[in-house]
Amino acid sequence: MERFEPDARLTRNATLIANIGLCQLRLVDDSRWTWLTLIPQRPDISEIFELTPLDQTMLTFETNLVASSLKSVTQCTKINVAAIGNIVRQLHVHVVARNEGDANWPGPIWGYGEAVPYEEVVRKRLADTILKALST
Amino acid sequence: MERFEPDARLTRNATLIANIGLCQLRLVDDSRWTWLTLIPQRPDISEIFELTPLDQTMLTFETNLVASSLKSVTQCTKINVAAIGNIVRQLHVHVVARNEGDANWPGPIWGYGEAVPYEEVVRKRLADTILKALST
Repeated sequence: MERFEPDARLTRNATLIANIGLCQLRLVDDSRWTWLTLIPQRPDISEIFELTPLDQTMLTFETNLVASSLKSVTQCTKINVAAIGNIVRQLHVHVVARNEGDANWPGPIWGYGEAVPYEEVVRKRLADTILKALST
Repeated sequence: MERFEPDARLTRNATLIANIGLCQLRLVDDSRWTWLTLIPQRPDISEIFELTPLDQTMLTFETNLVASSLKSVTQCTKINVAAIGNIVRQLHVHVVARNEGDANWPGPIWGYGEAVPYEEVVRKRLADTILKALST
């Protein structure tokens, strides 16, 4: 069995918040919206239905835990959850806090414009706040 | 408890394929890509994490069943799965077959251009093919 190695395009400009069981949880460095990614630590998987049934259930649990924490941290209008992967095929799930009037509201975030990086202190504090919200 | 009623914007131009337990499964009338929606038949829910844990697991099961059937019917390059809901807040999950070179590849489908309706005979045959794939 091959060893899991996250695709470099998913880790570059994305701060590791935690390993939460099945997935790595990362904060994407784009301050236009609070954008998290969950990367199941399984090699050679590009579709959710390729995971084992247990892993599928774990992914659902972790995704919903993260989504609900993100909602409580940001008090956003709507959470967007998506597994797209047209560009980076390694399975990853986006969990994004959206607000009326944000950069591409109500359109999707993927492929829209250029990322606006956080100031480092803001990024670290946000990652820390999300980690705390996950454990409460 | 309120009775479930699907939002008219989710049923208009979307053929009912089946009620598959928790969800209505519908085929969106846009021939640019094979685009299905799953609508959990629960009132007043807009985020997946608002469903009960059992319903969350059911939704995962039904989504992955549909995604895997759609992949086998279309032999597409990539399945896109998303719960967005920035416009229609009633919870619904998109399951879309994407191919290199399709209308907005590799960008997302939501909000892109105008739908291109199927010929009725093609739409009915496709709905029927998907229903058969779900039961095999």
